[in-house]
Amino acid sequence: MANVSLQHIQSPHDLRALKRADLDQIATQLREYILQSVARTGGHLSSNLGTVELTVALHYVFNTPHDRIVWDVGHQSYPHKILTGRREQMASLRQYGGISGFPKRSESEYDDFGTAHSSTSISAALGMAVASRNQGVQRQHIAVIGDGAMTAGMAFEALNNAGVTPGINMLVVLNDNDMSISPPVGALNRYFARLMSGQFYAKAKNMGKAVLQHMPPMLELARRFEGHAKGVLTPATLFEELGFNYVGPIDGHDLDSLIPTLENLRELGGLQFLHVVTKKGHGYQRAEADPVLYHGPGRFDPKQGIVKSSVPAPQTFTQVFGQWLCDQAAADERLIGITPAMREGSGMVAFEKQFPQRYFDVGIAEQHAVTFAAGLACEQLKPVVAIYSTFLQRGYDQLIHDVALQDLDVTFALDRAGLVGADGATHAGNYDIAYLRCIPNMVISTPSDENETRLLLNTCYQHTGPSSVRYPRGAGCGAEVTADLTTVPVGKGVVRRQGQKIAILAFGTLLHNAKAVAEQLDLTLVDMRFVKPLDTALIDSLLQSHQAIVTLEDGCVMGGAGSAVLEYLSQAQANVPTLLLGYPDRFIDHGEQKQLHAEIGLDSESIAERIQSRFTDLLANQN
Amino acid sequence: MANVSLQHIQSPHDLRALKRADLDQIATQLREYILQSVARTGGHLSSNLGTVELTVALHYVFNTPHDRIVWDVGHQSYPHKILTGRREQMASLRQYGGISGFPKRSESEYDDFGTAHSSTSISAALGMAVASRNQGVQRQHIAVIGDGAMTAGMAFEALNNAGVTPGINMLVVLNDNDMSISPPVGALNRYFARLMSGQFYAKAKNMGKAVLQHMPPMLELARRFEGHAKGVLTPATLFEELGFNYVGPIDGHDLDSLIPTLENLRELGGLQFLHVVTKKGHGYQRAEADPVLYHGPGRFDPKQGIVKSSVPAPQTFTQVFGQWLCDQAAADERLIGITPAMREGSGMVAFEKQFPQRYFDVGIAEQHAVTFAAGLACEQLKPVVAIYSTFLQRGYDQLIHDVALQDLDVTFALDRAGLVGADGATHAGNYDIAYLRCIPNMVISTPSDENETRLLLNTCYQHTGPSSVRYPRGAGCGAEVTADLTTVPVGKGVVRRQGQKIAILAFGTLLHNAKAVAEQLDLTLVDMRFVKPLDTALIDSLLQSHQAIVTLEDGCVMGGAGSAVLEYLSQAQANVPTLLLGYPDRFIDHGEQKQLHAEIGLDSESIAERIQSRFTDLLANQN
Repeated sequence: MANVSLQHIQSPHDLRALKRADLDQIATQLREYILQSVARTGGHLSSNLGTVELTVALHYVFNTPHDRIVWDVGHQSYPHKILTGRREQMASLRQYGGISGFPKRSESEYDDFGTAHSSTSISAALGMAVASRNQGVQRQHIAVIGDGAMTAGMAFEALNNAGVTPGINMLVVLNDNDMSISPPVGALNRYFARLMSGQFYAKAKNMGKAVLQHMPPMLELARRFEGHAKGVLTPATLFEELGFNYVGPIDGHDLDSLIPTLENLRELGGLQFLHVVTKKGHGYQRAEADPVLYHGPGRFDPKQGIVKSSVPAPQTFTQVFGQWLCDQAAADERLIGITPAMREGSGMVAFEKQFPQRYFDVGIAEQHAVTFAAGLACEQLKPVVAIYSTFLQRGYDQLIHDVALQDLDVTFALDRAGLVGADGATHAGNYDIAYLRCIPNMVISTPSDENETRLLLNTCYQHTGPSSVRYPRGAGCGAEVTADLTTVPVGKGVVRRQGQKIAILAFGTLLHNAKAVAEQLDLTLVDMRFVKPLDTALIDSLLQSHQAIVTLEDGCVMGGAGSAVLEYLSQAQANVPTLLLGYPDRFIDHGEQKQLHAEIGLDSESIAERIQSRFTDLLANQN
Repeated sequence: MANVSLQHIQSPHDLRALKRADLDQIATQLREYILQSVARTGGHLSSNLGTVELTVALHYVFNTPHDRIVWDVGHQSYPHKILTGRREQMASLRQYGGISGFPKRSESEYDDFGTAHSSTSISAALGMAVASRNQGVQRQHIAVIGDGAMTAGMAFEALNNAGVTPGINMLVVLNDNDMSISPPVGALNRYFARLMSGQFYAKAKNMGKAVLQHMPPMLELARRFEGHAKGVLTPATLFEELGFNYVGPIDGHDLDSLIPTLENLRELGGLQFLHVVTKKGHGYQRAEADPVLYHGPGRFDPKQGIVKSSVPAPQTFTQVFGQWLCDQAAADERLIGITPAMREGSGMVAFEKQFPQRYFDVGIAEQHAVTFAAGLACEQLKPVVAIYSTFLQRGYDQLIHDVALQDLDVTFALDRAGLVGADGATHAGNYDIAYLRCIPNMVISTPSDENETRLLLNTCYQHTGPSSVRYPRGAGCGAEVTADLTTVPVGKGVVRRQGQKIAILAFGTLLHNAKAVAEQLDLTLVDMRFVKPLDTALIDSLLQSHQAIVTLEDGCVMGGAGSAVLEYLSQAQANVPTLLLGYPDRFIDHGEQKQLHAEIGLDSESIAERIQSRFTDLLANQN
């Protein structure tokens, strides 16, 4: 056997120049490379170990980048990145200035569509397939989608549309690993399990028997025809009902199954659906045994596996929420906790264990999650929808039309508000203040630390009507969290430091970045707590004693909390100089939150500089 | 037969007190009442004529309001309204101060869930069903959903979740009239057609034959068992795969089918799926023949039917868009037109006829529509997504994550921006300026009349990147529309009237409401054309010569165009008095646009008053 090496694969062209027999070696090396690489940088592991052979086979069989591949969610795209010229850049994965953890069009001509949010791949690939049809280009368009992502309505909408679109080449590869991020839920997953276990065939066989048992002599004959019957009696799958040719399930770690099947499908063209079964974490025993733990680990030693640090990690906002949810649920049996497939990410593992009847993982289904909550609220229950800021964008219409318009009592716990770090622009929770603020009836709160998060969760939960509490990814300043269920007045802020001339109105955790400058320049620092209702009485009183207002928020300036303050100042006819500090009007790439805050002028130093530079005159008169 | 009369039905209790034999008479009277009533008020007709018997049967069999009914979309709820105490109020339907055209919780204890946007019913009913389970209440929960609404991903998400939720009573009634608003599209509809035509059974039968034909003597015997085989061989439907017990299809106009079937399903409990076949417009021949024409007519004479007025109606913005789309498509073969099931409403009938290969009705699937457009744009086509402002809320995440983040060249034609009249708060396009403005890369334009709409469509289409053109429901001021494809500079406004002291910056068609006051008080009136990018150079120059700024928009003030101006003034350190005119922070009910504008202070008189009252001093010095 030739001495093939992953090092020599600079692009899929090099891969396709290899003999079939050499591919197993490449796959082995690729898996090892991913393991070592992710262990050094952190990132997604289980999903990438699961797609090694599938990726090799796709690039081997299809003529990429002429043929298009859309990787749904995209956190399984590391093998793809490595095979498409980014092997060495893997060392910079998800780091400031480095390559993205998701496919990204600006990063490579092989990244045909940027993904990260789930279930977009079939829609995007269908768009491309229609384009090729209309342009008369012969091309294949492939959507690689997991079983979890398939539960989202958007995937169904795309299948439904594809099934009636004539003259297109599209291959949907269902990467069925019976595991999205949380364990799989929903009837569709049960259906996949039946397909895989062959019960579908068994069921069909039994139907045959049921007919034939009234004709005893035939039964024996029928048995002899069983082999033949298999091909005939297997009922059309759901996907065939929707217009696809369904093939599978096949073993997604077996290149001898994958390559000839993909070659066949390539020749067939049209609307094809390939059901591939893979194992998350395949080839690394620890990840196979606990794919959730190894879904998105930090750095670790592959020989040791992930070792729980003996140093207690600082408490995250997610954990504060998780603990509050359990405490509040214990105190109020009307509480229902809802997550769209983010049990771990939203800190709901303990809640599920303690309150299984009141825990709902509805699948990757944000639209449904929100209206389901509305239905519960109609019956006097008190649903808490735990959702990332960026994913609430998926349930926006439902929040407006089903919750806010009916003034229903739903509490939204918005995790990952603001910049999210390594996941980057796709996951950024930059817009929620702006997109929620314009909706009547919404209460929007922005806790500044861990304890404030608990207080405002208590408060918004007790508030009758739609409300939201937004808190960032990771840990805060380390504020001690009280264990009780105390509330604070809705729409009232708190002056944290009384100073002079300039009042900084902070909405959220960036308050702490402004502490030093407030001390240094003797400024007033206010924890506004709520964007809506805005504490206009407090602003009025500040106007009495101050000559300028600075607003500070970890969200976009456009339409954000600062903008709310300006609207009030306009209404109050207060002509006071203002400075709005928040996110600029551009998408912000991945990197550590600290690095990014420095980049966009929201670290302590920048805040001080910007205030001093804007209000030089005012501050010069100080002494 | 007793002399029963609809007039004596004050509530479903009265209906349930009747004998079964009396119900046909009630149904006949109800249908006639609806026809006469809608002919007088305008409103939805075809869908309501189609659900008369189903509504009678549901209220007869189930114990409403203890049992819950959620009417998906809700424009089929007139029979329900009439049977639940609102018979006489039908005269005020969809009129200012009158009852809503949709179910509305605040209107009746029988309206269990407010609907209007499609495909929310299963999610809401599931929420209610879970609440009853957890509260130990014995109750039935019914979602009545059309075949069109079933194509939305949200319905699938809810089915998928329901299928694995134990211990609940839920009945999904699929009201299959093979007709949403536009003709049905999508593979799911083909599937429904197969279910209805019995091909499902035929297919199963043929499968049996295929097995048996290798055993010739059995074939004859098999034929004799056909009757039996029917019950055995019919493959599980898609809905059974998802965990429901599928019953149907049954005739939805036959009370003798409906009542015993519903009674059975009531006794069975659990997860039930009833497939009912109805005919839109049933019982009124003209509507049966043209259900699209009679979908949502204005007033008409039932004896004559809808007569095309000999007076040419003023051109609507929708028509301006439709004409532009055809002209632009003729000039540029890269143009693709996309609608989520709103061919008529979005003015795309002519475009479909002229450019069938470039026309895509993707079904009620806004999420897919947007990402499908993104896929097309990746391949250098130029998609135009024609969508109502209120429905883009459904594709918000896709607009952010798939279009704007990748800076893809997609043009959004936002119809029904601002207040929409008779459809009311559920359909109001009040939020798009605010929710789009915070998204990087978006161009947002707000044409002030018909010709401006064409100019800005030209301009945004030619602009490479994501853009939107928003225009209101109905006709404008009657501006003549040029036929060419001229563009204007992106982000530049136009001074329409040069005046003194106060500049009114108008974003959109309310500009015309400000004309009189600009004349009267000699104010400057500016057509800003774009909210984003904002014409800051023009604002700078206005600041040189004016002492106050008024902004005017047909959208929410919170986070809207006025707020964008304030952000710029803050940044420019311009301490100028401002007045923001736009929609208040509350949901605004149905009524004519004019009435509503008067109510919220945006008719000409109110605008004049508000400017004069805010700037009394400034204007007093005028002479």
